[in-house]
Amino acid sequence: MLRKEYDHIILLAHGSPDPTWKKPFESLYDRAISRFGAERSSLAYMELTEPSLEYVVQHLDKHVKKVAVLPLFFAVGRHLRHDVPAQIESLKRDDLEIELLSPIGEDDIVKQAMDQVIAHHLGQNN
Amino acid sequence: MLRKEYDHIILLAHGSPDPTWKKPFESLYDRAISRFGAERSSLAYMELTEPSLEYVVQHLDKHVKKVAVLPLFFAVGRHLRHDVPAQIESLKRDDLEIELLSPIGEDDIVKQAMDQVIAHHLGQNN
Repeated sequence: MLRKEYDHIILLAHGSPDPTWKKPFESLYDRAISRFGAERSSLAYMELTEPSLEYVVQHLDKHVKKVAVLPLFFAVGRHLRHDVPAQIESLKRDDLEIELLSPIGEDDIVKQAMDQVIAHHLGQNN
Repeated sequence: MLRKEYDHIILLAHGSPDPTWKKPFESLYDRAISRFGAERSSLAYMELTEPSLEYVVQHLDKHVKKVAVLPLFFAVGRHLRHDVPAQIESLKRDDLEIELLSPIGEDDIVKQAMDQVIAHHLGQNN
């Protein structure tokens, strides 16, 4: 799969009123910043949880020119088809390129990993 | 990670009124049945989409004794903490063991895959 290289990646989760729900997203984000630095990635939520995508984009370092928004979702639904693209359009600037990626769950690497999890629970090794 | 071997795995997705939303879940299920056979796995939805977990459990082959329910979620929220465990309790029988697994997104293999996706988008190879 061809991947472009971005200055910064925003991990976008749904958000929930449940405080424990967001832990796995925070852990993913923590691993990303510990590997690549806080200037290379952010975590944002679509609703119900702060910070919002808008807030994160508006507080990006001025050197960031090319941003990817990676939805932490398995599937594209209404939010990712309508709400998020509209929001991203409104946040683009002449000096800031923002691209909405496919949901992380639709990436081939993650799909293969999920296939493997199922296989293991059925006692298969590959 | 220690994994038990089950006779049958039920992939449990949230469900949505959006018809295109369920495609990635159906694809995951299709890959599972093409590799391991239709008698080894099922796809069920928590709400808004059929078939329900209850329906799937009630229609399992009589030879199935040990079932895993694998939530196709990234995180544990209210549904997985309360609703689904209660539903599973009510579906257990003397001749049918049903175990609720951690969400697929919290499996180490999937977590590593997600880390890799982020790395690739930042132009890193590992």
